[in-house]
Amino acid sequence: MKIEKVKGMRDYDTDDMLIRRNVVAMVEKIFEKRGFVPIETPALEKWDVLAGKDAGGRDIIEQTFNFLDQGERRIGLRYDLTVPLVRYVSERSNIGFPFKRYQYGRVWRYEETRKGRYREFYQFDIDVVGAQSVAADAECIATIVDALGEIGVGRFKILISNRKIVEGVLNFLGIKSKKQIEGAMRTIDKIEKLSSVQLYAEFKRYGIERVQAGEILNALSRKGKPAEVIRTMLKEFPDNDKVLEGIGEFEKLVDYLDAYGVTSKCVFDLSLVRGLGYYTGCVFEARLDAGGDSIAGGGRYDKVIGSLVSREIPAVGFSLGIERILNILKEKDYVKRPVCDYFVVCAGDEMKFSAIKIAEALRAEGMIVETDLMGRNFSNQMKYANRIGAKKVVIAGQKEMAQGKVVVRDMIKGKETIVEVERILGV
Amino acid sequence: MKIEKVKGMRDYDTDDMLIRRNVVAMVEKIFEKRGFVPIETPALEKWDVLAGKDAGGRDIIEQTFNFLDQGERRIGLRYDLTVPLVRYVSERSNIGFPFKRYQYGRVWRYEETRKGRYREFYQFDIDVVGAQSVAADAECIATIVDALGEIGVGRFKILISNRKIVEGVLNFLGIKSKKQIEGAMRTIDKIEKLSSVQLYAEFKRYGIERVQAGEILNALSRKGKPAEVIRTMLKEFPDNDKVLEGIGEFEKLVDYLDAYGVTSKCVFDLSLVRGLGYYTGCVFEARLDAGGDSIAGGGRYDKVIGSLVSREIPAVGFSLGIERILNILKEKDYVKRPVCDYFVVCAGDEMKFSAIKIAEALRAEGMIVETDLMGRNFSNQMKYANRIGAKKVVIAGQKEMAQGKVVVRDMIKGKETIVEVERILGV
Repeated sequence: MKIEKVKGMRDYDTDDMLIRRNVVAMVEKIFEKRGFVPIETPALEKWDVLAGKDAGGRDIIEQTFNFLDQGERRIGLRYDLTVPLVRYVSERSNIGFPFKRYQYGRVWRYEETRKGRYREFYQFDIDVVGAQSVAADAECIATIVDALGEIGVGRFKILISNRKIVEGVLNFLGIKSKKQIEGAMRTIDKIEKLSSVQLYAEFKRYGIERVQAGEILNALSRKGKPAEVIRTMLKEFPDNDKVLEGIGEFEKLVDYLDAYGVTSKCVFDLSLVRGLGYYTGCVFEARLDAGGDSIAGGGRYDKVIGSLVSREIPAVGFSLGIERILNILKEKDYVKRPVCDYFVVCAGDEMKFSAIKIAEALRAEGMIVETDLMGRNFSNQMKYANRIGAKKVVIAGQKEMAQGKVVVRDMIKGKETIVEVERILGV
Repeated sequence: MKIEKVKGMRDYDTDDMLIRRNVVAMVEKIFEKRGFVPIETPALEKWDVLAGKDAGGRDIIEQTFNFLDQGERRIGLRYDLTVPLVRYVSERSNIGFPFKRYQYGRVWRYEETRKGRYREFYQFDIDVVGAQSVAADAECIATIVDALGEIGVGRFKILISNRKIVEGVLNFLGIKSKKQIEGAMRTIDKIEKLSSVQLYAEFKRYGIERVQAGEILNALSRKGKPAEVIRTMLKEFPDNDKVLEGIGEFEKLVDYLDAYGVTSKCVFDLSLVRGLGYYTGCVFEARLDAGGDSIAGGGRYDKVIGSLVSREIPAVGFSLGIERILNILKEKDYVKRPVCDYFVVCAGDEMKFSAIKIAEALRAEGMIVETDLMGRNFSNQMKYANRIGAKKVVIAGQKEMAQGKVVVRDMIKGKETIVEVERILGV
């Protein structure tokens, strides 16, 4: 038997944990400033909930770890935090709206593994449940801008689109069946990843011919300043209800983004549709200027919760790409380890209890302190103190201690001083 | 399809999360003061690792959620944090000793559910890996005392025993086969839960007759001040090597506990064996004076890691009963919610952007601020501000704003003042 991790899983070493903790605490503070509050849900959900018709889509369902529990119930590990949120809200009929929650937790997907891509990872989501107004979309976008700015992950832009406009364009071009629209959306989602030959082939799979496909790509190539995009679209699609509805939301959003002071960060880009099937209106995504990686994304999903409860409950939210953000920060040498203030050396067996007493007294002062737990000799204790990066070493020697004194060595300056035991406790 | 949680699982509402976060941060600080550092491991481990011979014991193995992944590998959800630690250490041949780690994470067990008992819960563990010295046992005990004191969970005692003494007593009474010893240990572990009739019946299941069982119970009834317990045991079992070895460890531990300044919290109690099969020496448990609930426990397990790697690696650690502690604190009304500093009321549709701008400016000052996202009228916005417990409400009315002013209502005192917009930003 080989002792090893499960394929696709990773351990989080101390540096990983410390950077994660710092960033999570920073982001939580930003979220709470806007009245978002934390919840957590179980790792396991009923299969019916995970695989429900408006859930994450077929690809994700196939990637879900699922099994029968000892009571023959089919259950699975959650693949995102949105489906559990929907279940959470639908179980609480007396929940107050807007329900503004954030959630940081692990999710699991059986995907192809590659460097930096695991089958277990964290998501960090915020959602506003119950608010129909575009104001909530703008608040989500402002929250991303705030959080990414505070983390200091590098310069970024928020790409914004609206599914209604895209759907309207497709309708206008004669694409009207649900299956074709979904296929077209999935293809549009791959615009940046596929060559044009591959793109046309993909469109064709959903029965969309080359000419139509070309017109789709042309129409959705609009991007840039909101006012310009809106003007162009109104000129090209003056009569399509869906397009007009989407543009109406766009126009309102523009004013809200302005009030939130984030206009300069925002770019309208109609080719953005985002993969998930459940989005119904505004969708958005944060991308780094350097590299173009998506580091946050979300949108409005007004139908999902309603499909589970008897009334319609609109919602909008986003997921922070916390794993990608942490990888970027790690490369930037962002880790701050708790620094050992003192290592108290035990100079000979008869001094071991004195060393512990000094260590305990320093800890009571709030210091980070270590002593020898290995029965090591003097020189090996000094090596250990060095390895853990102790700032100072206290040497409780028998001779000095008899006079109520200890030697304190500053490990950075390499200087030793003899200090009264009581004195170092005040240091 | 009924939308509901998986049986045995629970959601964590906001109050649960906030109290959890406070306590975890507090405890992490205590752990780090002693040089413990965080790691995390995957939720999923290979079945071979979870069910390994020195793992958690047959009961727990049967409770483990396990299944085949899409690649036909048998995997399971971890049932504790110790087995993953053992795997973690065994995969890292160059790890420096002592490896002092802490870990806070979820574990899963398919147990009978009852009030307050779930199939998913958190554990909070610290372990010292690689240290043979009793000093490490004492450091663990001192860390528990520190952490429980800091949390303020109520008065408590640390019960301490040593498996070697118990095993020596059993040997002395003629119980020598591994199976009988394990059976006896499991029975002793239930001393407080079972009636004496049930206890004798249980001993009998392992072939231990009434007279022997009576002698076991009598010998292990010793408890109290360390020096007294040691004196009695030495008198009654002067020749048994195992007993003497255990008492030798006890005597050393007494001196270390004294140096750590925790003697007054410690009680020796030989009837404590703790269920898990892998403990080899000192075992300990923290119990509340009120109620006697166990709120932390652990011990030394010197053989487990060695059974997986080619050399022996001693270890000692404990698990903080974080769920029980949180339940106690919750009853004490320990939750601190982030308090909404301002709710900015939108007084009429034409003021909605002004309200957002004021809210954003207050947030930039570090305040927790909310505005209306629901398109509610004035009176419903005030109701909402009340419900979320906003300390102050800012009313941006058209008339006042025209003069660069807003109304600020103190929701606690019920007093309204008219303030210049610029002024409230400095409040």
